[in-house]
Amino acid sequence: MITLHHCVSARSFRPLWALEEIGVPYELKMLPFPPRVFARGFKDVNPLGTIPAFEDDALFMTESSAICQYLAARYSPGALDVAPHEADFGRYLNFLHFGEATLTFPQTLVLRYAHLEPPERLQPQIVDDYARWFHARLRALAPRLETQPYLCAGRFTAADISVGYALMLAELLELSGGFAPSIADYWHRLRERDGFLRAIRAQEAAALAQGVSTTPSPRLRP
Amino acid sequence: MITLHHCVSARSFRPLWALEEIGVPYELKMLPFPPRVFARGFKDVNPLGTIPAFEDDALFMTESSAICQYLAARYSPGALDVAPHEADFGRYLNFLHFGEATLTFPQTLVLRYAHLEPPERLQPQIVDDYARWFHARLRALAPRLETQPYLCAGRFTAADISVGYALMLAELLELSGGFAPSIADYWHRLRERDGFLRAIRAQEAAALAQGVSTTPSPRLRP
Repeated sequence: MITLHHCVSARSFRPLWALEEIGVPYELKMLPFPPRVFARGFKDVNPLGTIPAFEDDALFMTESSAICQYLAARYSPGALDVAPHEADFGRYLNFLHFGEATLTFPQTLVLRYAHLEPPERLQPQIVDDYARWFHARLRALAPRLETQPYLCAGRFTAADISVGYALMLAELLELSGGFAPSIADYWHRLRERDGFLRAIRAQEAAALAQGVSTTPSPRLRP
Repeated sequence: MITLHHCVSARSFRPLWALEEIGVPYELKMLPFPPRVFARGFKDVNPLGTIPAFEDDALFMTESSAICQYLAARYSPGALDVAPHEADFGRYLNFLHFGEATLTFPQTLVLRYAHLEPPERLQPQIVDDYARWFHARLRALAPRLETQPYLCAGRFTAADISVGYALMLAELLELSGGFAPSIADYWHRLRERDGFLRAIRAQEAAALAQGVSTTPSPRLRP
């Protein structure tokens, strides 16, 4: 049995999206954001206090892109997964990591120091440094997306979920105005997918049923 | 043919360590740190300007933990790799990502805002915020390492290289004084491995032969 602990539109959206693309049954447990502050009992589930927290029977995972790769390999071989014998295996792994380590972490600095910290701890220099970082790294994807619809292997894979979430977060943080045309088109393609739309509806329905706000954070409104 | 573009003791040490553990031939090309500043021609190799840059024939990769997973799966099945059918596959993927996204990225903020930026742009608040973040996340590993020598699958894997490099960087940044005893012991075990020692010697020999300084950065001396 799979359980995903999730905050609306946070990184845990990646495994939620993967679950909906694959069509495997799961239970979705909603939390207010950030859970470290607003759901202290969550530390009993995940001592790190971070989301996602993911359980598949005895397995426990916390890294969103790793969970996508796991789900792809175990539940979607030949589709969302790219196997070691395929020519694009290395590229697939690279984009899985790139989406989180290179494209999402810098945005969390923008989120933290532009929106989440109290006024005396806001840091415009950091916000500017890492918004620039994000755009500089993102530009590297533009040429590839001018000639192909997805990042690798000629099909939609878990790597597109890893990078796609970084684009979703950029839109929430109002960083998407800087997207190159091929990246804006790619993001448009991704968010029209049935699996993406099902994931959006799943988090809205679960938030309503479990009494959790559907806005990412009360402070995330500039 | 494998080529690795590397700066002394930077993230690209991960694939170097993996190559030495596996024993696969490679060419090591040394760069001064940071290459964006001191080796501008490197942009022709990697438009991102980041290291590692890794080539295996036509494949090009830039994410250090992804390269380790690639090398493990392609050149070390059953040893450094953990396959999808193994019980610890999910845990292996989680630690591969955790080592970079959760344990290394926060340290790069300490490096940048305590050491690399010019004096008027140093940011003690950020250094403090992310040194705390690093230690809080690292503590989660301590219980597991009290009862087993490596992170998963009962053997040394690429996941230990991903997390082990984060511990190596912590030592360079003088953050290792806060290690719990089981983590300090684990780091001691890792750095005594033949593969680790060969990687250290390989970067020293290549730096000497190619006329690159063996200190990570002229400013990285508090």
